[in-house]
Formats: sequence, C-alpha cells, structure tokens
Amino acid sequence: MSEIFKNHIEKFTEINDEEFSEILAFFQTQQVRKKENLLVEGNVCKYHYFVLRGCLRKFFVNEKGLEQTTEFAIENWWITDNIAYERRLPTAFYIQAVENSEILRIDSYSQEKLLIKFPKMERYFRFIYQRAYAASQMRVKYLYELSKEAFFHHLNEKYPEFVQRIPQYLIASFLGFTPEYLSEIRKKSRS
Amino acid sequence: MSEIFKNHIEKFTEINDEEFSEILAFFQTQQVRKKENLLVEGNVCKYHYFVLRGCLRKFFVNEKGLEQTTEFAIENWWITDNIAYERRLPTAFYIQAVENSEILRIDSYSQEKLLIKFPKMERYFRFIYQRAYAASQMRVKYLYELSKEAFFHHLNEKYPEFVQRIPQYLIASFLGFTPEYLSEIRKKSRS
Repeated sequence: MSEIFKNHIEKFTEINDEEFSEILAFFQTQQVRKKENLLVEGNVCKYHYFVLRGCLRKFFVNEKGLEQTTEFAIENWWITDNIAYERRLPTAFYIQAVENSEILRIDSYSQEKLLIKFPKMERYFRFIYQRAYAASQMRVKYLYELSKEAFFHHLNEKYPEFVQRIPQYLIASFLGFTPEYLSEIRKKSRS
Repeated sequence: MSEIFKNHIEKFTEINDEEFSEILAFFQTQQVRKKENLLVEGNVCKYHYFVLRGCLRKFFVNEKGLEQTTEFAIENWWITDNIAYERRLPTAFYIQAVENSEILRIDSYSQEKLLIKFPKMERYFRFIYQRAYAASQMRVKYLYELSKEAFFHHLNEKYPEFVQRIPQYLIASFLGFTPEYLSEIRKKSRS
C-alpha cells in the first residue's frame, strides 16, 4: 500500500528503494473507519495526513451549528489544518473519514527532521504546497464568482467521478446548502 | 533594494553573499507605476513577482464587468496566477500596481533552473507556498463563515495598517461590495 506514496514522490523527485524505506520510517500507517474523527476542533493539530486509500474531509461547525466542509482528500492528497499544524496550535477544524481509509501520518517535528535528512523531500513538498495553493486560489475565485448552484455544475462537469463517489449530504455540506436543495438542483439538471 | 529579498530568503535558509548574487541573476528588477498592469486577462502568465517596495493586487473582471480583487501583495510577498504560471497558460486574472512599486520577477523556466542549481531554494519556496496555502485555506473558511461586513471588521482589527494603506475603493473591490457601502460601514463602526 505504501507503494502509492513512493509513486507519488517519484512524480516530483527521484528516490531509490533504500531512501524510500528510510523516508517511510518517519510516518505511521493508520486505518480509520468511516465517520471516525482524526482531528477535533479545539485540539492541537499534530499531524499531516496522506491518503493511501479512501477519503477524508475537513470541516468546521458554523454559527448555525452546521458542518461546513471546506476540503476533501482522496488517494494521493495531503490534508491538515496547515496553520495549526505548522505552529502546533489548537485547530478550528475537524478532519473526518468519509470512507474506511488507510492513511500515512507525520507530525510536524518529524516532517522537519525528514526535510533536513532528505533535502530532496523539500522539492516534493514544494510541489505539494505549490499545487494545493494554486487550487485554493481558484477556489477563492469560484467562491466570489459562481453561485452555489453554478459551482455544483462546475464540480459535476470537471470531477464527475468525485461527485458520484462522495455522499450527497457531504457534497451539499461542501457547497453550503441543504441536501434537499441539492436534490432539487440535480433533478432540474436531469430534466 | 535587493537586500530585502536576501533578508527574506535568510528567514528560511542560509545563504552567503556570493550565492545571493548568483541567485539574484535569475531575476529582473522592474519599476512599475501605480495602476500599471503587469498581467492582463487572456495573456500567458509568464512571471512570478516578488515585491521589494510598493503594492500589487490581483483581480478578475466578473460577469457584471466589475473588478473583483482576490489578493494583495505588499513588501516580501510573492504574487502570480499560480496555475497559469506553472503551466504557462493564458490567465483569467489581472495583476496591477496599487502604488508605484519596485519588484523582482522571474519566469517559470528560470525558476526551475534556479531550483536545480540551488536546491536550498526548494526549502525557501516550500515555505513560501506552504504559508500562502495556509493563508488561502483560512481565506476560504472566512468566505464561508463571515458576512462581507464581518470580514471587513476582521481585516480592520487584524491588519489595521494594511486597511489604512490601501485605497478604499480597492478594499471594497476585495470585499465584494461598493465603495459607498464600505463608507457606510466605516461610519457605523466609528459611531
């Protein structure tokens, strides 16, 4: 299963088997069941997660007490509350498994040691953050530009398999409307 | 003036004067006048900009023909359309000087060469993207969580000097409302 991580690193930098097994020693593998929380609001955000299999989501609980999902992470994605992780602070977010998942996790001290021991991992993480930042910038643009309904259609066109895979109430929680409203939009777009 | 860039690099990694002068050779210095465009919608996004002095902003023109500002960059900040820059694609954004500014610019080919010649710059850019991504994630949270008015008060409390420095009509363009409405909110909050 950890081969998935090796393949992902190799997209950005070369590593041999020996290096990879040393790199992997900085991580723990974790099995997590659907709906299990990896991170809870108010707790210190200790870990950075890489998804080997399954799906995680990040959300916060808004003023109305509703879960507002801000991110999903499927295979080959990293997820954490980055500010809280880097500074080892309590988080305002939850991270929860959407499906039974297998993940790698690393704490920020170990990540720093890993980067010092394997400077080529700086290149790997530079790409990870660069692409995540670029995606987040587009997300900000869409939040300004598109209505919630238009954003749903955009998702549906660009990532149909993702929209199929994620339970509808979580797609609704990501878009910021009720599952009932999402269901209406879907009916409208089919007719 | 380039000393500002050296100091910024030294926050994240050690470099000596000789290395810095070699690194600097990958960049061009550019003077840009207030309201001058560095990037225009539809053009290929060639450069990544670092602000030595002054202020830039990034915006797109929305459906109603209004300029929606999505980012500002003051001293020590980087700015570009990251997806378009990395892939050398036409952009959907403008980048414009808010003040007369002095900037460094690098194209994506040179940035890649720089990173290969000076792997320690991988560490520098890893931190740049990591922090920019973390800030962008918080931005997404605020866009979901806060009303435009609450977001203005948040900015005003957290970055009062920034709100003072930027012309009011641009703060309004960042928040997504009219200058008149911003002026009303400011009056209300003073009374």
